[in-house]
This record gives sequence, C-alpha cells and structure tokens, in this order.
Amino acid sequence: MATIKDVAHEAGVSPSTVSRTLHDSSLISQETKAKIWRAMKKLNYSPNFAAQNLANNTSNIIGIILPPDEESVANNPFFGQILQGITSVCNQQAYMVSIATGKDNAELIENVQMMMERGRVKRFIVTFSQQSDDVLEYLDRNNAEYVLIGEPIKNIAETLYVNNDNVAAGNDATEYLFDKGYHYPVYVYENLEEIVQKDRFSGYSHAMERKGKTPLNYQIKKDHTKEKLQEFIDQHPEADSMVACDDIIGVALQNGLLAIHQNLDDYGIISFNNSLFARSTHPSLTSVEIFPISLGMEAAVLILNIDDQDFTRLRSTNFSHVVIPHKIIERESTKNN
Amino acid sequence: MATIKDVAHEAGVSPSTVSRTLHDSSLISQETKAKIWRAMKKLNYSPNFAAQNLANNTSNIIGIILPPDEESVANNPFFGQILQGITSVCNQQAYMVSIATGKDNAELIENVQMMMERGRVKRFIVTFSQQSDDVLEYLDRNNAEYVLIGEPIKNIAETLYVNNDNVAAGNDATEYLFDKGYHYPVYVYENLEEIVQKDRFSGYSHAMERKGKTPLNYQIKKDHTKEKLQEFIDQHPEADSMVACDDIIGVALQNGLLAIHQNLDDYGIISFNNSLFARSTHPSLTSVEIFPISLGMEAAVLILNIDDQDFTRLRSTNFSHVVIPHKIIERESTKNN
Repeated sequence: MATIKDVAHEAGVSPSTVSRTLHDSSLISQETKAKIWRAMKKLNYSPNFAAQNLANNTSNIIGIILPPDEESVANNPFFGQILQGITSVCNQQAYMVSIATGKDNAELIENVQMMMERGRVKRFIVTFSQQSDDVLEYLDRNNAEYVLIGEPIKNIAETLYVNNDNVAAGNDATEYLFDKGYHYPVYVYENLEEIVQKDRFSGYSHAMERKGKTPLNYQIKKDHTKEKLQEFIDQHPEADSMVACDDIIGVALQNGLLAIHQNLDDYGIISFNNSLFARSTHPSLTSVEIFPISLGMEAAVLILNIDDQDFTRLRSTNFSHVVIPHKIIERESTKNN
Repeated sequence: MATIKDVAHEAGVSPSTVSRTLHDSSLISQETKAKIWRAMKKLNYSPNFAAQNLANNTSNIIGIILPPDEESVANNPFFGQILQGITSVCNQQAYMVSIATGKDNAELIENVQMMMERGRVKRFIVTFSQQSDDVLEYLDRNNAEYVLIGEPIKNIAETLYVNNDNVAAGNDATEYLFDKGYHYPVYVYENLEEIVQKDRFSGYSHAMERKGKTPLNYQIKKDHTKEKLQEFIDQHPEADSMVACDDIIGVALQNGLLAIHQNLDDYGIISFNNSLFARSTHPSLTSVEIFPISLGMEAAVLILNIDDQDFTRLRSTNFSHVVIPHKIIERESTKNN
C-alpha cells in the first residue's frame, strides 16, 4: 500500500505538501494539487480517513439535512435532484454524503446530533428554509458549518446560502402572462409561511402593482373543495390566468378547474419547478425551471471549500451567497391568448 | 462525559453487556438492550464510533446505492420513499446512511469503492436490480454485505432481498380489469429489460392466458409518437383497457390517447406505484400500491442485523427474502364499465 512518502516522491514534492493537499490547504497551488492528485491516482493511494478523522476530530462526511416534511420529500422531485447535484460533486472529491431525515424538527435535530456526535460530521447542507429555524440554531450552537439551500430568515449576512431569486422569478412569470396577452393573473399557493412561496408571491405582487392591478391570491390546501374554487371563480370573473407556486399545485389547479367543468384552455397557467409533473399533465404546463441539480452542486462546492483560507477571506467581505438563474419553459398551458 | 462503566452501573449490568449491546449482539435479550439504551440516553452516552471503527476496521455507516439512471432518481418518487424508509430505521438505531450515485455503472462502482476504502463502509442496500450485475459483482468480490431491493438475477438462494411479488401484482391488476367488466387489457411498458416491468408482464400474461386470450403489449419510449399509438389502436380494436407498468407510463399513455382524440373514459387504465402522479392526473388512475417506505424499512432491518448470530442461522436455512404485499387503490380510471 502506497504511503504519503511514496506519493511525495512520485509527485516530486515534500510529504508535508501532500498532507496539506489532502486537507485542501489554500497554501498549495491548484497546479501542485493536480499533480499530487494524479500521483495518488497512479499509486492507488487511499488515505486512511478513519485514522485521520480520529486525529482531526472531524470527518470526511458531508451531512445533508432534508426537510421535516415526509410528504414533500417523497413526492417533490426537487429533493431527488438536489441530492444528485450534491452527491455528484462530493463523490468526485472523495467525500461521502450522509442524509438526515425526521418526521418533525425534534426528530430531525436528534438525527443531526447523532451524526455530529457519533460520525463526527461537522459540515452540513440544509436543503430547506422555514420560518422556525430550530435546525439552524442547533447547528450554530454546536459550531457546525453549513450551507443553506434557500433563503435565510435570520443572520442573512453571516449565512452562506445558495438560492434562486424567487422574487424575480415570481415577477418574470407574471410579466410573461401579461406579455402573452392575459389581463388578470391570480397567484395560487399552498402555504405562504414557506419562504419560497412567499417570495414568489412578492414578485407576482410587484408585477401586478406596476400594471396598477390589485394582487389576488387563492389557496389550494389538502382539504380543498371544488365548491370553494367555484365560489372564487364566480367572485372574480376578471381572473383569466394563474401563477401556480409549483407544478404540483399547477396540476391540482387544473384538476380543480376540470371538476367544476371549466375549459382548461380558457385559463393561462404558468407554474414553477419544471418537473415531470409540468411536462406530463394535459395541457402541459409552462413552467419556470429553477435548476435544482445546480443548486445542489453549488452548495456542495461551497461546503467543501469552507475551510479554505481564500474562501474565509471572501466570506469576511461581501460574498455570502450564490444565485442560480431561472428560465421560463414554454408549453401548452399559456398558448391560447 | 459518561463511560461504558457509568452506563453499566445505571442499567445494573456488566460493562461487557453494554459493549455487546453496542454491537447489537444476539446474546443480549431485547429487554436488556432496551434497558441499556435507556441508560445511555439518560446519561447522554455517546460511543466514540471513530475510535471503534478504527478498532473494528468497519463503520457504522450503511451505504445506499441508487440506480445509474439519473432521470429515474430525479423523477420517480419511489426512490425518495425508499430513502425515507431506510433512514428512519437507521437513524433510530444510530447508524448513518450514506448514498452513492453515478451516471453509469462505472461511475457508481467508483463511488462505492470510495465509500469502502475511505469510509470503511462494509454494508450496503442496493435499491435496484438490473440485467447487468456489475455492481453486485463488485460488492461480492470485495466481501461487502448487501441487501437488494428488487429481485436478484443470479445467486438467488444466497442473496438477501426485499421485494414485492411483481408477478402476482401484474396478475392481480389484470384480473381486476376483468372483474370490472373489461374484456381485453393491453400491457403498456417502457423497457422489458427492467426486471420489475418484466415480472409485471409475466403476471399479466398468466392472467390473460387463463382467460384464453393472447397477451398483447405496447411500448411507450421517450421518442414515442402519436402516429404509432394511432396505428396500434387501429390494429387492435379489441383493446378496451390497459395495464400500465407504472404511474408515469400511465400518465404518458393518457396524454397519448388525448393527442389522438380518444375519449379517456372509453379505456380502463390501471397502473402501478400509487404515486402522486396517479392521484393528480385526470381522470385519476387506479393504481397498485407497492409500499416503497416498507421496502426501505425492511431492507434496513435486514442489513442492520446481518451480523447477528440468529440471523446467520436463519440465512443458512431457507430465509433469504422478505415480500412486501401490494394493494389495489381504486380511482376514476376504471369506473366506466
């Protein structure tokens, strides 16, 4: 089995340079690092991470914290794609990825605690943001490093996060409907306590107000009835189009309209996420792609480099988040005006 | 910080009993184990797993291997639910769960290798079965223990696996259509190389043959055209219903029928998986629930107990797999006969 010395000899550097490279020190140039990684690969060198972990009191595992909402994790393709983005970057860099789930915040925190204490995991990616920030508080209190996917509620300046600009996305979706000739879009949501849904609603509201129109919203929950939708439609004959807060709500809205015998072609619908739900429903939904795989990849790059000195310098200045762009994918649901 | 001795004192047992409990030895009764776990919890005892791992040359991490099919992982809710089942059991037993993904078998195996070498992971749950068994061969060659979710192709007697009885499920779905008064179901699939789709087709074929009818199948691939579906419908006027190999194919079939101006109510459709796709399409799909969360939970129970002596005894006899039942959930798509 190859040792650090063998790798140093092969790469023509000192053993301490190899060791620093293993810890991804910013003192070593990218070129030298690349040379050393090639030497490791050639010699099939495998650092003994278990021994290292013990010495460092830390581990080469990145913890991924999924939301305490089992329904969402099971049904929303967003999380599968985020996981793919994270694991592709982490595995490539020889980091393992470990996931924590839980029915509620308490169970989730218990599992995060287990990872920190027993697995010595010190770095996390939190894949959701919520009004209650128990989980982030727990991480802060225990000096864990983390990157948030989503928008932080508190400590925005000190939090590293990766996000879409959901206010801009809400605005763009609404303007898209105006451009297509629709006159009165309604915002359709499930829960405005969720930051993403709230932000998209802000963007929608801005676009409406710029046109001198009063924002109008409609809630679809699990116990939604067709009578409620009928009542809303009757009260708002001006409504000719909808901005649905995600594809799943978009499909639920289509089914609601069908249930009260509305012609789907009479309403323009744009939704968010551009998942398979948007592509497979009929008429297929125009939807805003938010690139979850990129969100996951960028979060992984941030957390893997969090101890880098250049990076620390960067954090102490202005840099604290990465914005992933969004893109409107046109389909059948907005083609009738 | 509490020690093993403190825990032993609190629980009124010897330190070696505590140690055996930590390794989940079958020599210790469930009652005693429960007493010891309670004492650990009370004293907030946290075994130093990093040190243990080094001593044992193994780790308290269960590796989960996702299929080398990024499209499926990103879109099929099946995998999110399997992950939930696995993590709920593992986290409860203070095991971490680490996931391996890859674009193809080669990349996947590279990541599994990394987990084995650097993370000392020795126990895996493989969440898919395919005709090519490169991944399982790699695990066998490297003396890893694993539980398969799905049906093994080779070494069936020696492989531990958790599965639905997909042949029976295919049969039951077809008989359900006959019971509802349909006369000629067609099996609609994407890829018969996939074991699950092949098994459901076998079950369908048995049910057809028992009625003296020739099995008939139709393939929907990504490049599927409405002309092809039109041709099939024209050639087979006897077809009055469909068994779709999963919900996503069921929805694709509905859209295909709509595109050639067929009335969806004229065809009975039953699909498999009972995911949100089945619930949210219109008309909603009657679908066979296969309980992915249970598949994940049972696989986790098997892999966590794989070193248990009772379990080894069990394996040497007949036991090698767990079958999770299935259940037909009736909806609108089979109500018109």
